[in-house]
Amino acid sequence: MSSRWVEQPEHVVDAPGALPAGFRASGVACGLKASGGPDMGLIVSDAPETVSAARFTRSGVLAAPVLLCQERCRLDALRAVVANSGNANAATGRRGIDDAARMQGAAAMAVGVAPEQVAVASTGVIGVPLPPDPVTKGILAARAALATDGDEAFGEAIRTTDLFAKRVAVDVRLPSGKVRLTAQAKGAGMISPAFATMLCFVQTDAGLAPETADLLLGVCVRRSFDRISVDGQLSTNDTAILMASGAGAVQIAPESEDELRFGEALDFALRHLALEMVRDGEGSRRRGRVMVHGGDDATVVRVARAVANSPLVKAALHGGDPNWGRIAQAVGAAVPDAAPLALDVWIEDVQVCSSGAAVPYDVPALAQAVARDEVEYTIGLPGEGAEAEVFFSDLSHEYVTINADYTT
Amino acid sequence: MSSRWVEQPEHVVDAPGALPAGFRASGVACGLKASGGPDMGLIVSDAPETVSAARFTRSGVLAAPVLLCQERCRLDALRAVVANSGNANAATGRRGIDDAARMQGAAAMAVGVAPEQVAVASTGVIGVPLPPDPVTKGILAARAALATDGDEAFGEAIRTTDLFAKRVAVDVRLPSGKVRLTAQAKGAGMISPAFATMLCFVQTDAGLAPETADLLLGVCVRRSFDRISVDGQLSTNDTAILMASGAGAVQIAPESEDELRFGEALDFALRHLALEMVRDGEGSRRRGRVMVHGGDDATVVRVARAVANSPLVKAALHGGDPNWGRIAQAVGAAVPDAAPLALDVWIEDVQVCSSGAAVPYDVPALAQAVARDEVEYTIGLPGEGAEAEVFFSDLSHEYVTINADYTT
Repeated sequence: MSSRWVEQPEHVVDAPGALPAGFRASGVACGLKASGGPDMGLIVSDAPETVSAARFTRSGVLAAPVLLCQERCRLDALRAVVANSGNANAATGRRGIDDAARMQGAAAMAVGVAPEQVAVASTGVIGVPLPPDPVTKGILAARAALATDGDEAFGEAIRTTDLFAKRVAVDVRLPSGKVRLTAQAKGAGMISPAFATMLCFVQTDAGLAPETADLLLGVCVRRSFDRISVDGQLSTNDTAILMASGAGAVQIAPESEDELRFGEALDFALRHLALEMVRDGEGSRRRGRVMVHGGDDATVVRVARAVANSPLVKAALHGGDPNWGRIAQAVGAAVPDAAPLALDVWIEDVQVCSSGAAVPYDVPALAQAVARDEVEYTIGLPGEGAEAEVFFSDLSHEYVTINADYTT
Repeated sequence: MSSRWVEQPEHVVDAPGALPAGFRASGVACGLKASGGPDMGLIVSDAPETVSAARFTRSGVLAAPVLLCQERCRLDALRAVVANSGNANAATGRRGIDDAARMQGAAAMAVGVAPEQVAVASTGVIGVPLPPDPVTKGILAARAALATDGDEAFGEAIRTTDLFAKRVAVDVRLPSGKVRLTAQAKGAGMISPAFATMLCFVQTDAGLAPETADLLLGVCVRRSFDRISVDGQLSTNDTAILMASGAGAVQIAPESEDELRFGEALDFALRHLALEMVRDGEGSRRRGRVMVHGGDDATVVRVARAVANSPLVKAALHGGDPNWGRIAQAVGAAVPDAAPLALDVWIEDVQVCSSGAAVPYDVPALAQAVARDEVEYTIGLPGEGAEAEVFFSDLSHEYVTINADYTT
């Protein structure tokens, strides 16, 4: 583990090796990426009773595959995922929907399940029609490459500007026995704390009721991909899908100790992957965590997001600049007309602002704190009982370089 | 004029030279800036019946001078402004209020008017107490330097990261005669389209009723400083003050042709200064204007701000990258759950998206359009009757450099 902010539970142990029982996956190159790198991935569950759950971006400009999944998939009974990188199939209109439907149909035929049991996901450039030939060829090649240890290849095939692959493969010791949990994700830019620009696919051989899968995925997404910011930009394509084959020995009963323990493992996996996205934030060198406590749920979340999204706070984090005035500024912008505000601010353990006013602090201690790879900001608002955290990357020269010439 | 987006009306002519009748101003160095540059400015009207109006940031973390102005000033009858750079006197608590009050009291004594007729403004680093000695000495020196052509020196004294001074000095030909209008502003970073991080002081020798001054300033601020984005960051110190000495020959009657013409001149002056702030946006190389039309007032403003604030759109503008998918993404994020959205997008005169779908376009024409210094984005949402525009700067390497080490 690379972050002090995500602790691996004791009953969750690394399991290098194969996918959970019932699953095969693959990733191949089909020509969607100009680089010639892997760009088409396939995951399939061979268990007919596979249970699933899904979450999507709330953008008003939804990519075609997201619209297709929402309108034409049995999201509680998915058997397969087909995902491409190199093209987001977003802002592509009626043709985009048709292209996504063709991709779904081809994958369904290739793996032998009903089309409505195949989820489609895309990531890459927005506003360019998806070329059909590479997609069809890619799906055929991906079918031929399906393997029980294909999760690594699948993870490669969904990368775009990601500098490194993001995967989890663990065994989870539950009271009723051991289950395996694997997940593959992508995400580096266009990451907003209102559900990040990312794809994440999770597999387990545990048996789960559809309601349980949906509940657990919803809770864990809210604590992970919904709480990170690289650049505060909500995407058109965000998709998270959990599939439970039930092909292992353990059936997880609702409201059981098994469910609790499995939920902890899923929470760990998704938070780990979310933190990995922040670590891989385009051009990122440092990470921050902002914790806000106060009396009102909506306000603490809004303030945490405003601080995490602030380019001034991010640039200060990048430069190791202990300029906490930027934090006060971002908080103030998030709570208009609330002045005078009894605001407390700590950077790591050093309090810099008390009840809205600067306090004398240990300058060398603060300088040392902000020079670390991970910097923690704590903000106190009036009242108590509500708390929110958001993880964020810094703003660097490399972010500008990456994003000034993305399509050219 | 440097922008095609602000046209100088025919009845408004440049008037290099002195302040409007009744006003004197000055700017001196008092040691608040480490650089030793000018950092204390004073404006005074010698006309007892001077009328004024003011607008301030809505941040929940208000700087002490803003709180002081709102609570202890006769904002419709200001006679003087004292403004410093190098220290924002924000997040400074009770002591900050006392320091601002002392600054107000010293300036009132220096220029011989009541304290509640002196507005106080500060800009610079947040969270550092204002040292009292330089302030007092600076006010005395500024009083000694007061001159009828002191607007240039005053403009210098309110600069922080501004690369160039921002001033307007024009004569306005009204049906009833000629009036003079001058204004000095600062602003380069922490510029959000919900009233920018800026200071702006406007003087005229026209006679205005307090209600007229307030109405005109409110309307013109909404069309200028409330519609620009450098980095989407609302400040703690924003202040705009209009003072009308009435020392000239023209009294402007409410709802007269004089009022209309004067309003046009004020609108020109403030939009010019707002565009100058965008042009001076920290590290900025290019400017954009986003125009959004549709059926709902709140939505078009929200969408225009989201596009103008998007670091992805800004980085694409910086790189001359015709990646309009970024615009679709920013629009979608601003209108959650609105998909599918019949979105139209033009860059300059080239339509790239129609009813939510990419359309074929003239690639060389678009490449040429996005390589200009000013790039115009037009967004059509469903419905008609509502329109909003926001001006914004690009996101550059220099922005990161400037903001990664601001205090260190």
